[in-house]
Amino acid sequence: MNPDIVKERKNATFDVEKLTFILDGGPEKTRRRREIESLVFSDPDFKEEDPNFLSRSERYDQAVRKSAQMILKLREYGIADPEEIYHYKRCVHPDRPEPLDLHLGMFLPTLLNQATPEQMDRFFMPAWTLKIIGTYAQTEMGHGTHLRGLETTATYDPATQEFVLNSPTVSSIKWWPGGLGKTSNHAIVLAQLYTLGNCHGLHAFIVPIRDMNTHLPLPGIVVGDIGPKFGFNEVDNGFLKLENVRIPRENMLMKYAKVEPDGAYVQPPSTKLTYGTMVFIRSMIVAESARALAKSSTIAIRYSAVRHQSEIRPGEPEPQILDYQTQQYKLFPLLATAYAFTFVGQYMRQTYHRITEDINQGDFSEMPELHALSAGLKAFTSWEATSAIEVCRMSCGGHGYSRSSALPDIYVEFTPTCTYEGENTVMMLQTARYLVKSYKQAKAGQQLSGIVSYLNEADVRRVQPQPVAARPTVVDINDLTSLTEVYKLRAAILVELAAKSIQQELQRRKSQEDAWNNSAIDLVRASDAHCHYVVVKLFTDKLGEVADTAVHSVLSTLALLYTLYGITKNSGDFLQISTTVMQISIRIKELLAQLRPNAVALVDAFDIHDKKLNSVLGRYDGNVYEHMFEWARKSPLNATEVHESFHKYLKPLRSKL
Amino acid sequence: MNPDIVKERKNATFDVEKLTFILDGGPEKTRRRREIESLVFSDPDFKEEDPNFLSRSERYDQAVRKSAQMILKLREYGIADPEEIYHYKRCVHPDRPEPLDLHLGMFLPTLLNQATPEQMDRFFMPAWTLKIIGTYAQTEMGHGTHLRGLETTATYDPATQEFVLNSPTVSSIKWWPGGLGKTSNHAIVLAQLYTLGNCHGLHAFIVPIRDMNTHLPLPGIVVGDIGPKFGFNEVDNGFLKLENVRIPRENMLMKYAKVEPDGAYVQPPSTKLTYGTMVFIRSMIVAESARALAKSSTIAIRYSAVRHQSEIRPGEPEPQILDYQTQQYKLFPLLATAYAFTFVGQYMRQTYHRITEDINQGDFSEMPELHALSAGLKAFTSWEATSAIEVCRMSCGGHGYSRSSALPDIYVEFTPTCTYEGENTVMMLQTARYLVKSYKQAKAGQQLSGIVSYLNEADVRRVQPQPVAARPTVVDINDLTSLTEVYKLRAAILVELAAKSIQQELQRRKSQEDAWNNSAIDLVRASDAHCHYVVVKLFTDKLGEVADTAVHSVLSTLALLYTLYGITKNSGDFLQISTTVMQISIRIKELLAQLRPNAVALVDAFDIHDKKLNSVLGRYDGNVYEHMFEWARKSPLNATEVHESFHKYLKPLRSKL
Repeated sequence: MNPDIVKERKNATFDVEKLTFILDGGPEKTRRRREIESLVFSDPDFKEEDPNFLSRSERYDQAVRKSAQMILKLREYGIADPEEIYHYKRCVHPDRPEPLDLHLGMFLPTLLNQATPEQMDRFFMPAWTLKIIGTYAQTEMGHGTHLRGLETTATYDPATQEFVLNSPTVSSIKWWPGGLGKTSNHAIVLAQLYTLGNCHGLHAFIVPIRDMNTHLPLPGIVVGDIGPKFGFNEVDNGFLKLENVRIPRENMLMKYAKVEPDGAYVQPPSTKLTYGTMVFIRSMIVAESARALAKSSTIAIRYSAVRHQSEIRPGEPEPQILDYQTQQYKLFPLLATAYAFTFVGQYMRQTYHRITEDINQGDFSEMPELHALSAGLKAFTSWEATSAIEVCRMSCGGHGYSRSSALPDIYVEFTPTCTYEGENTVMMLQTARYLVKSYKQAKAGQQLSGIVSYLNEADVRRVQPQPVAARPTVVDINDLTSLTEVYKLRAAILVELAAKSIQQELQRRKSQEDAWNNSAIDLVRASDAHCHYVVVKLFTDKLGEVADTAVHSVLSTLALLYTLYGITKNSGDFLQISTTVMQISIRIKELLAQLRPNAVALVDAFDIHDKKLNSVLGRYDGNVYEHMFEWARKSPLNATEVHESFHKYLKPLRSKL
Repeated sequence: MNPDIVKERKNATFDVEKLTFILDGGPEKTRRRREIESLVFSDPDFKEEDPNFLSRSERYDQAVRKSAQMILKLREYGIADPEEIYHYKRCVHPDRPEPLDLHLGMFLPTLLNQATPEQMDRFFMPAWTLKIIGTYAQTEMGHGTHLRGLETTATYDPATQEFVLNSPTVSSIKWWPGGLGKTSNHAIVLAQLYTLGNCHGLHAFIVPIRDMNTHLPLPGIVVGDIGPKFGFNEVDNGFLKLENVRIPRENMLMKYAKVEPDGAYVQPPSTKLTYGTMVFIRSMIVAESARALAKSSTIAIRYSAVRHQSEIRPGEPEPQILDYQTQQYKLFPLLATAYAFTFVGQYMRQTYHRITEDINQGDFSEMPELHALSAGLKAFTSWEATSAIEVCRMSCGGHGYSRSSALPDIYVEFTPTCTYEGENTVMMLQTARYLVKSYKQAKAGQQLSGIVSYLNEADVRRVQPQPVAARPTVVDINDLTSLTEVYKLRAAILVELAAKSIQQELQRRKSQEDAWNNSAIDLVRASDAHCHYVVVKLFTDKLGEVADTAVHSVLSTLALLYTLYGITKNSGDFLQISTTVMQISIRIKELLAQLRPNAVALVDAFDIHDKKLNSVLGRYDGNVYEHMFEWARKSPLNATEVHESFHKYLKPLRSKL
């Protein structure tokens, strides 16, 4: 064990294990998580070659092998709870997506939700036993967010009682679905349904794409891998071009909408139900943001405790780089953010489950708020995390750039969350739509409840424009409740500003739609401020649940740092409320110094197994340099002492010059 | 040609070619650049496999092949001007570093600067004809920025008149030098010189590391590749462990410092001369930042003109995504930044050459200012560019994540500039040291000249703390001169704030060094504000040189956008000067709309050859989708219809479930 890191742990002021329990949701959850981890990490069947040393084809191959093993073992051990499956999977493929993700996460669930009993018989059991391997093909080369724009067609032919599927243009080729390129033999294809000459919009169809025995593409199917990406090297994201592909009428997913044998279209009863899945996935992304940030800050903070560089005082030994104020200023706010997002993720999961209960009892009232909130928080947290990971990487100097640090991989596997499941700017605008609607309702005299109640008339009146100096807001910069109020006020101001921008555009005789587009910058800002307020509020609320004094104290310091840091980063907004920004900068420096002794303990509390972290810089034992050397020596370029290019190009060059 | 992009070009209000001339530095420069480009791009010897489809070893192999070709052709064509060599190289390896970079860029120049005539005879010609291939080994696994901390030793043995080189610890292993892993047979090694029992600090030694014929490592040499990184896949960044390696006394570079045969040490006359190289390299990085941003914004803006998505007005066709205000707000300020940095790069190159002349005539007076400025601007521009590239990538939706977009590669090849040649935070603190020193000189009554003259007493007195509302600063938000003044004022305020923070710490009986560290956040902010002011000033100054009215007009709009955008992003600082921030937000929206018709023309003016851009999204002809499909089909995973993993793992799984 590296002596620096031992010293760090000795200096901590709280019991790390107690904090881990809070992060996991209780001691029993921690125990079970660790049990699952050791199940995987001690299993020789899951031993792997370092993917960084493999070609893409070898990476895919290794991932398929492990996924197949994983399915067998999960069934063998009888692990069936979704959360436990999730933990297991994240150990088998340490935080990497894998080729069967869409089969397990989209194909099977979509069958469960949208297949008729007959379809369940025909498809579900074969898919459960992996005879059928499926994916979910929605996105097209030219169409993502805007579903109505999808071009793939499914035209009903009453003569044969079949649908004929086509990709009429290049831009209509299905593009991106995971597992589509090489792994799947079926796809649920989203296509515009045409029957009896009318288009009825997007519907889902089960399309066999490869022969069940030879795995060769079926007639009319052009399928393949979309080529290398920034990350996702284990996944065969694919393309699918459909050329007059015929499937039986019964392959349309017909639990809700239907096409009768004669071609008559039967509408689905309601569309509200799909809401839930989106909310669930987005709340998962919030938790992902927290996890990615927890990993990155674990690596950067541990390494900063081990790394010595330069000098603060001449003649003295080189200090740990964690002792530089600039390093603390880079990393501690991000550490605080990792904690904040973890608690937001917990809240969203709980709320989702609570509201799902309500919905099952016919009460949809809270759904719109949660839907709007989940969109904004998905964007807010994934944007924050994506840039924070890079700050962590760069805070490790050159070594952060080495694949052995794991930071490049954390980044490339995480950053797509800013785009998928709803592009972030679009998400922010969705939340803004809800905020502006709520604002208008409040203006019209309605009394708002829930998280947007700050938009009620009485509250908004407090934020009418007035000279800055005349604003009497007194802020106690050590009191989280007072600071939460300031965040709330900022959100209210920015929502009002956006709403007024729309109004002004309308007064200039712009259409409703142009007014919206011409206010989009303000709307995104308003959403951002709203989400920031929610995060601050939830972090503060969480403190109320923490009984242990020492843990409460360090978490309070983190929450305060998170909150004050957010104010300085957006000081223009906050200066319009209060002029205490200067004091805040000084207070932040004090908080950094206060957190310094607990920094390593705070990342230890995330309790991320070394095999999951997979970083020479972030190792629990701090023995960085020896392992970096060991890792490098395994690099494929070192398989031979002399690379063949010397004999092929460099030596012959001598005689020519 | 894609009709959208044709339409865009038709709508432009200025002559693109005229702007290209300004960016290149004159029509003749443009002509010659294009000539060199066509020399390379029409040369079948430089045809390459898409590196994205190759393994790392194949990428290295291909790069060595092309580098060897490049050397032959440069000599054949007699291209000898450094700038022209640079253009040529950047076409051969489109903006990718290559294995011979350090041989050409560090090994040969270091010989030229520091070798004795005898050493020139022995090493230079063999290196010129690539019998000797060298690298420059400074950084160690445990030591980067702080040169005094390097641990490698070179101990003189008078008995044999040799130096004995050693890597005494794991952390002392040389780490990172490009071309060290597999390519080089010599290295210039920086080591602590010990002779007659005394340490004389860091000196440079020429160390043979591989046999000239077999290319096998020599006795006592442990050398290899440091393993895969985020980018730099073509380069064999290497490690070097020295175990009692003996080299003749004459292998120490002895043009300045010397060790006599008896072991007596002779000091070098002056150390000031190394300043120049650092300034030169940092000013190159400013230009790199501009280029990386020019490429990224070319790709993102052209693609945004071709991509249609969602709807602004219901029922109408999907608009070009460049019509969304949020997309403009993401991309146009970055486009403006690309122009700003290009002009800053031009200024620095010119200034460097001017000051080099002065130095040759013994006038060192301007060197400290340029040195300080180059450090800060290196950090300022590379930080801005590194995050801007990612904004460009994410503005392209999912496709930005595909390697076919080129954006992932631009990012990973560029982001190391934030760390190498001086870690950015350290650079910012260097500039801050100069600023604080200048501030103190002014306080002490000295009259400052040059770019820091705003710190003169008379000016600083204007920024003494006073209530915000009482600040009478009147800002014309359409006047660049007035806005430049505001940036200057902000810099003055922040330098003063940092200086005062140090003072306060000293009053609390902190040592000078602790006071500095405890003010580091403020110091970095001050540097940042100073650099930002310089960029705004240089952009504004540049406009004075532009004669063409149409070009002047569009560049002025860009400069105004750059300047106003910077204010809103740092509105907290600026609100303390003036309360016009709100108007600025509205003005920015107008500027976005104003720039919209010229966006594609403005990136066309960068004139980046399609083969250099190497992006399916950024193609000049806008035919994105067809080429993306074509590219994907070449992906190695599509070499066979059925991947072997199906037969190995997936099919056998069926019988087990």
